[in-house]
Amino acid sequence: MSERIPPIVAVVGATGAVGREALSILAERRHPAERVVALASDRSAGAEVAYADRSLRVEAVSHEALARAGVAIFAASSEVSREFAPRAARAGVVCVDNSSAFRMDPEVPLVIPEVNGSMLERGRHTLVANPNCSTILLLVGIEPIRRAFGVEDIVVSTYQAVSGAGLPGLAELEGQARAFARGEPIVSRVFPTQTLFNCFVHESDIEPDTGMNAEERKMIEETGKVWGLPHDAPITPTCVRVPVLRAHSESVTLRLRIPASVEGIRGALRAGEGVRLVDDPSVGAFPTPLDATGLDEVLVGRVRRARPARGSPESGSLDFTLWLCGDQIRKGAALNAIQIAEILCPGLRDPVQESSNPGSRDARRRAGA
Amino acid sequence: MSERIPPIVAVVGATGAVGREALSILAERRHPAERVVALASDRSAGAEVAYADRSLRVEAVSHEALARAGVAIFAASSEVSREFAPRAARAGVVCVDNSSAFRMDPEVPLVIPEVNGSMLERGRHTLVANPNCSTILLLVGIEPIRRAFGVEDIVVSTYQAVSGAGLPGLAELEGQARAFARGEPIVSRVFPTQTLFNCFVHESDIEPDTGMNAEERKMIEETGKVWGLPHDAPITPTCVRVPVLRAHSESVTLRLRIPASVEGIRGALRAGEGVRLVDDPSVGAFPTPLDATGLDEVLVGRVRRARPARGSPESGSLDFTLWLCGDQIRKGAALNAIQIAEILCPGLRDPVQESSNPGSRDARRRAGA
Repeated sequence: MSERIPPIVAVVGATGAVGREALSILAERRHPAERVVALASDRSAGAEVAYADRSLRVEAVSHEALARAGVAIFAASSEVSREFAPRAARAGVVCVDNSSAFRMDPEVPLVIPEVNGSMLERGRHTLVANPNCSTILLLVGIEPIRRAFGVEDIVVSTYQAVSGAGLPGLAELEGQARAFARGEPIVSRVFPTQTLFNCFVHESDIEPDTGMNAEERKMIEETGKVWGLPHDAPITPTCVRVPVLRAHSESVTLRLRIPASVEGIRGALRAGEGVRLVDDPSVGAFPTPLDATGLDEVLVGRVRRARPARGSPESGSLDFTLWLCGDQIRKGAALNAIQIAEILCPGLRDPVQESSNPGSRDARRRAGA
Repeated sequence: MSERIPPIVAVVGATGAVGREALSILAERRHPAERVVALASDRSAGAEVAYADRSLRVEAVSHEALARAGVAIFAASSEVSREFAPRAARAGVVCVDNSSAFRMDPEVPLVIPEVNGSMLERGRHTLVANPNCSTILLLVGIEPIRRAFGVEDIVVSTYQAVSGAGLPGLAELEGQARAFARGEPIVSRVFPTQTLFNCFVHESDIEPDTGMNAEERKMIEETGKVWGLPHDAPITPTCVRVPVLRAHSESVTLRLRIPASVEGIRGALRAGEGVRLVDDPSVGAFPTPLDATGLDEVLVGRVRRARPARGSPESGSLDFTLWLCGDQIRKGAALNAIQIAEILCPGLRDPVQESSNPGSRDARRRAGA
């Protein structure tokens, strides 16, 4: 029964967008507040963060604070992860890192539970990296298709929310909407250009030799690693920011290895894990980032053959197109990290009180969708 | 000298977004106000529309009003175009129709001047159709590449402005931003879902057999016709609305017929007509829909190989990706229509006073960009 005692969970970067979401997910799962430790930089120490109906006092992150935890979710900068995660992991704390610090480190697993969670071994893996949000949402959304039909090639264009830049990104877009409404000048500080009523190429660094930005490079490299390929994944990405608050959308064109039908793909998606099929052309029901906001699942729809002749019969084809939306802060970051921790630390997932809690997100998920 | 007398230009649908833009372009070109006739439905007759520093009284559209014009720009519904354009065209009025009424009619040319304007014959063609906005912007943006290297295949995802639904679409997005700022409920009437802080699949009808929407179908069919193909163009489109006011963006992945380099493609774009290369990764200068707003040109940038190995030498490749933005109301509709009319009615393009007008858009264009 000892695994049923909820572990102490440390959330590093508890005042940021992903840290707050991690706290919110733990609270939804009824993880006891007294077994949660909110950590952040010295600057934020002493602040209060919400946890269910109470609040937690933020402590400065330290090796000592982490050593007391069973699980640590790192949702701060790469520098903080590099400084604190390896030592805590060596001491046996299950560390899941949401930064890019260890993603491509060959010693550190890069995991999306629905895709390659089975590679994780309790006891052996104590430091695990969370992929980049765009990568997580793409790979969760297409995993049922990849398992059933294989994926040979992907062209993807993203419609990314401003929350990728954290709470300051959210505040900037909302502030610009208010400034517009008041007829005031629109000021951009977080992003290089106006976000309201605009779209722009993802603001990450651009490689001079290839013209690819860091976000696009992550999708290619991280997918190769998550899929266990010996090379980058065959993806042609274009990463773009749009004036949306916190869910990313992706327009995806796939070439499969095995011919499929639209209904075959829909069937795979219906049975898929972490995915919800939202695809009813007769009523125009398709995923939107607003609908995906706050959900655990990646919404997938507009499954169609990439270039059908009109009136052509539904038959085996290799080329398909789809549209997916997912909450970038939740499944794209905090939830994925917590799911990884749950695999490695079973007491986290199924604390004793879970079964008596019909209002939990988990119970709602089983009942709905 | 008779072609130098400016023709009477009738703008049908003068109170709509495209009609107003057509009037604005004519005014910028110093077309005399007394040779412009603003026409609209009975409902709008009697209204006033701006023309340079004065205003024009809107008349109800009629065969008689059109018969007095030398040029008619149709920027109303397909029904209005079907009722009035063929008769005016038979009477010798140069009619350019922005609706979808005649686009796929084999008797009616479908023209983007930069792409296939040379097919137009004065005297012979008096009814010409304007392609759909997404098609115009895509085809203008890639035409220099097509001419130099050929285009074998296109995957395109659009980021379409709300102005595609005319002034009501613009008003709805702006109104939603104001409602958000005031903390009021956000109401959607023009679009099927909230536009502010959201993205959604283009609202046009969806074909039950293919899942393709009408906007996507137009891109495929119209491109085939504009390019003079005996079949639909090899395009895989995904058309999406984003909360942007009046310029569309498109993420485009191309397969060429002849291998090219990034610099070769940039060179072709620099020399291209109606296109402005905005592509400086070193300072993050790429097209945005805000920057494209109000411009004649389609902005093109992020030219890069679709899947380069890092550090690989720049060599001939067939697969490229780019990002383009263009004003949907201007080049995507009103300007393209006026440019067609200018080919067929030379007095429209070069009225006598043009040379004495250094502040004209044309002079600015020659001097700038």
